[in-house]
Amino acid sequence: MTKPLTIAMHPADNVAIVANDGGLPAGTVLPEGVPGAGLVLREAVPQGHKVALTDLPAGAEVRRYDVPIGTALADIPAGSWVHERRLALRPARELEGLPRSTFATGPHPDMACPPELTGRTFMGYRNADGSVGTRNLLAITTTVQCVAGVVSHAVDRIRRELLPQFPNVDGVVGLEHSYGCGVAIDAPDAVIPIRTVRNLSLNPNFGGEVLVVSLGCEKLQPERLLPPGSFPIADGRDPASGPETVCLQDAAHVGFHSMIEDILDRARPILARLNARRREPVPLSELVVGVQCGGSDAFSGVTANPAVGYAADLLVRAGATLMFSENTEVRDAVEQLTRRAATPEVAEGIVRELGWYDRYLERGRVDRAANTTPGNKAGGLSNITEKAMGSIVKSGSAPIAHVLPPGEKLRRDQRGLVYAATPASDFICGTLQLAAGMNLHIFTTGRGTPYGLAACPVIKVATRSDLARRWHDLMDFNAGRIAEGELSIEQAGWALLEQMIATASGQPTWAEKHQLHNALVLFNPAPVT
Amino acid sequence: MTKPLTIAMHPADNVAIVANDGGLPAGTVLPEGVPGAGLVLREAVPQGHKVALTDLPAGAEVRRYDVPIGTALADIPAGSWVHERRLALRPARELEGLPRSTFATGPHPDMACPPELTGRTFMGYRNADGSVGTRNLLAITTTVQCVAGVVSHAVDRIRRELLPQFPNVDGVVGLEHSYGCGVAIDAPDAVIPIRTVRNLSLNPNFGGEVLVVSLGCEKLQPERLLPPGSFPIADGRDPASGPETVCLQDAAHVGFHSMIEDILDRARPILARLNARRREPVPLSELVVGVQCGGSDAFSGVTANPAVGYAADLLVRAGATLMFSENTEVRDAVEQLTRRAATPEVAEGIVRELGWYDRYLERGRVDRAANTTPGNKAGGLSNITEKAMGSIVKSGSAPIAHVLPPGEKLRRDQRGLVYAATPASDFICGTLQLAAGMNLHIFTTGRGTPYGLAACPVIKVATRSDLARRWHDLMDFNAGRIAEGELSIEQAGWALLEQMIATASGQPTWAEKHQLHNALVLFNPAPVT
Ligand SMILES: [Ca+2]
Ligand SMILES: [Ca+2]
Ligand SMILES: [Ca+2]
Ligand SMILES: [Ca+2]
Ligand SMILES: [Ca+2]
Repeated sequence: MTKPLTIAMHPADNVAIVANDGGLPAGTVLPEGVPGAGLVLREAVPQGHKVALTDLPAGAEVRRYDVPIGTALADIPAGSWVHERRLALRPARELEGLPRSTFATGPHPDMACPPELTGRTFMGYRNADGSVGTRNLLAITTTVQCVAGVVSHAVDRIRRELLPQFPNVDGVVGLEHSYGCGVAIDAPDAVIPIRTVRNLSLNPNFGGEVLVVSLGCEKLQPERLLPPGSFPIADGRDPASGPETVCLQDAAHVGFHSMIEDILDRARPILARLNARRREPVPLSELVVGVQCGGSDAFSGVTANPAVGYAADLLVRAGATLMFSENTEVRDAVEQLTRRAATPEVAEGIVRELGWYDRYLERGRVDRAANTTPGNKAGGLSNITEKAMGSIVKSGSAPIAHVLPPGEKLRRDQRGLVYAATPASDFICGTLQLAAGMNLHIFTTGRGTPYGLAACPVIKVATRSDLARRWHDLMDFNAGRIAEGELSIEQAGWALLEQMIATASGQPTWAEKHQLHNALVLFNPAPVT
Repeated sequence: MTKPLTIAMHPADNVAIVANDGGLPAGTVLPEGVPGAGLVLREAVPQGHKVALTDLPAGAEVRRYDVPIGTALADIPAGSWVHERRLALRPARELEGLPRSTFATGPHPDMACPPELTGRTFMGYRNADGSVGTRNLLAITTTVQCVAGVVSHAVDRIRRELLPQFPNVDGVVGLEHSYGCGVAIDAPDAVIPIRTVRNLSLNPNFGGEVLVVSLGCEKLQPERLLPPGSFPIADGRDPASGPETVCLQDAAHVGFHSMIEDILDRARPILARLNARRREPVPLSELVVGVQCGGSDAFSGVTANPAVGYAADLLVRAGATLMFSENTEVRDAVEQLTRRAATPEVAEGIVRELGWYDRYLERGRVDRAANTTPGNKAGGLSNITEKAMGSIVKSGSAPIAHVLPPGEKLRRDQRGLVYAATPASDFICGTLQLAAGMNLHIFTTGRGTPYGLAACPVIKVATRSDLARRWHDLMDFNAGRIAEGELSIEQAGWALLEQMIATASGQPTWAEKHQLHNALVLFNPAPVT
């Protein structure tokens, strides 16, 4: 048998998780160097399940992720299996009377804190507004799905015919989306997809430039999408003139190829300006990192998400911006979020966004996925708070400094840890994080997904070594080494930070090498007509 | 000045539309061969506006599209401009107390009826279930957006490396969509996107075959999407075995390229079977035509839509299936639809679908676009019924034989004129009509759109000659010749029918020549999570 291995999430936890395949039998002695070293297991504990690190008298709080997940129903001696039938569960929190900003203590007090962190840089592209790109991309944005076929055609030709002349440009991205006149433009909730499309164009990876392709008769006119002045322009051009726009219905267009040539002609000067740019050293504080998880398994909350959380704390310490998201996955640990809010106003913002989402789901007669499934319990998750904490752990331990509604863009002064309120859907969350200004994306997965985005590099983090080995050319980072005892969470967090710096500086991800990317998917809570 | 031209929609109409650019001045004598021949205009009438063909005493019904659109507020002598201030408007109909199936009289009694229509055929691909394809396409369907990047990559390779070996196969289509685990799979309304994805795979242009690409951990598992027996199979294969499926998370996949090779390996035998097929003469009754309009102008309801409506009547007479759609555009002429219902049950189906849609819009606090805009009135549309009738005229004059809820597939015995209830959004409507089994699509446009679908040929019909000339390699049919007096509506309807037969038999549309196509966009009234 391989060496017994337990993993604890926080020094204050009084339970740890058994990492070994097949679990550990009764009588196992936990070895030196793991949580509970020296303990003898009083009974078999399955993989992914909890073992008591100390004697837990009846009524004692059981803590994991430094959070009380329940109380012992009877005495649980150290070395026992702490399964859900031995815990009095805490009820899911409603949104009234939550603690607000009572725990804003910053990163783990025990966090290793080498002095060199503050001086670290990555090689990025500086934009006129001070933001920084990790890629140098030509973006062609669209006001309406009508033009998507023409834009795809033009993007192909630009890639084949123009990009070879502009070797410093990393690629061309058509920002195609499903928005059309069918979205009820004046419905109250339509503001979300509209601002999302707008803010996507402003992503720092596009260099403060965009070429707009419009049909002409669409309700979402280019001036409504991107009012003059949307782009801070550093050179001699008039910022009030607005972005370069090709309108397909323009009377000057005779024939399909005149539309394509017009797009190519207007792309050339933008490509020339982008091509003149060079990477330069910029502080880590210019990273805007979005984290999410998808295709999760029992180890998501044990290996990959904690490693990401550790790296998140490092980034926050470096002054960077770290967004976490996924309303339905954090909802049942809302108490932990409001407690971590930097200010009472931030706590109220969290309650506002999650309350809005509760009502949105109720309108569609959807139970928020409030209960642990039998599969979750078999995997070791005793209750909904424990499940949500496994997702939230990606956010590390910093105070939550800001709350961002869906589709909004972060201001330059909104740094630190941000709760960007989005659905959990991988594609909708990714699209909204792009609109928020993300320049680097971290995606953890247990079951495996080929997820990618055209506009931003995505570092995919595997929860298990088995997945990382089989998908050796799709997974960018193997957090499964934590479960195999090769790396501590801290070591994995530091290694992930190094990989983030390399990727932000231009090292391609696997998805970029294969040119794999998913669709932009808008969050549209408004009806279609 | 060019010859004065008026256009009436129906022999029973007592108003006609002025077609000439800039309208017609007072004193114009309407020439022989146009509605109102010999009349002298008593005042100037703008383009697109109505002229009284007979004296309309105060209180008289004003009829257009053979429908009363209002009553004269005072005496309106023949040759007068019938503008909206001279009409008492009929209020928009609520859904109670509607006439039901009181007008099921069939195509225009005056319709030219040459005997050869019943014997006409097109060259199509017969499927095992008796349905007929107008194209011979390999479809790769997807259970979830997660796999879209991999499927795009595989589709590119199949196009480049395999299709040249299978020259009778017209193309390969990746049925990529935004559906993911984020759609609340058990929400009552989630049945709509799920059945849409399912029925898309069953489109007759895919030859009764499909290759499924699944991730593995998605909620919408392949067996739930396409239960065994979904495909009628004509050869020796076991129909209970279900379609060929590639699951990316399959443990046998080591590395990205093994996934791609697996998709290519399983595509080859399907391509070989498709390649062995040949077009054969089939009766017109096997056409399943979806019609819609987008980017409409004042002439949509005067030229293109009436020509389509005339062709629709011809198709219905030939035993074919003709779907019209777009809930919000027909809503305000619901009375005309329920009156044309073939049976009271069909009338009730129309009320059920439009009533459901009313409530869906109310939930999102959207006014159904019930009022004519100032632009509509300037263009000559006096009220909301007149506006809706301009859209409905695409459906011709046959009784409405069936009503199809969104995402459902027509049964083989559901022929004739069908109201397929969909949103008006071009992409959502087209996607739902594909799911219904459409093998030919007619799209009318006044402002112009490069709209196309990968799965089905789209004949784009221009409302004006100016658009048809400028977009000479995007518009497939010029209905503007009606407004120029070159063709009558009847002649245009027959010419369009001939073009439909040619296109269904393999003649490529402009969008096919340029490989232009829009995204599949699901109608998802359920929340995302
Ligand atoms: Ca997640
Ligand atoms: Ca997710
Ligand atoms: Ca329409
Ligand atoms: Ca429309
Ligand atoms: Ca439409």
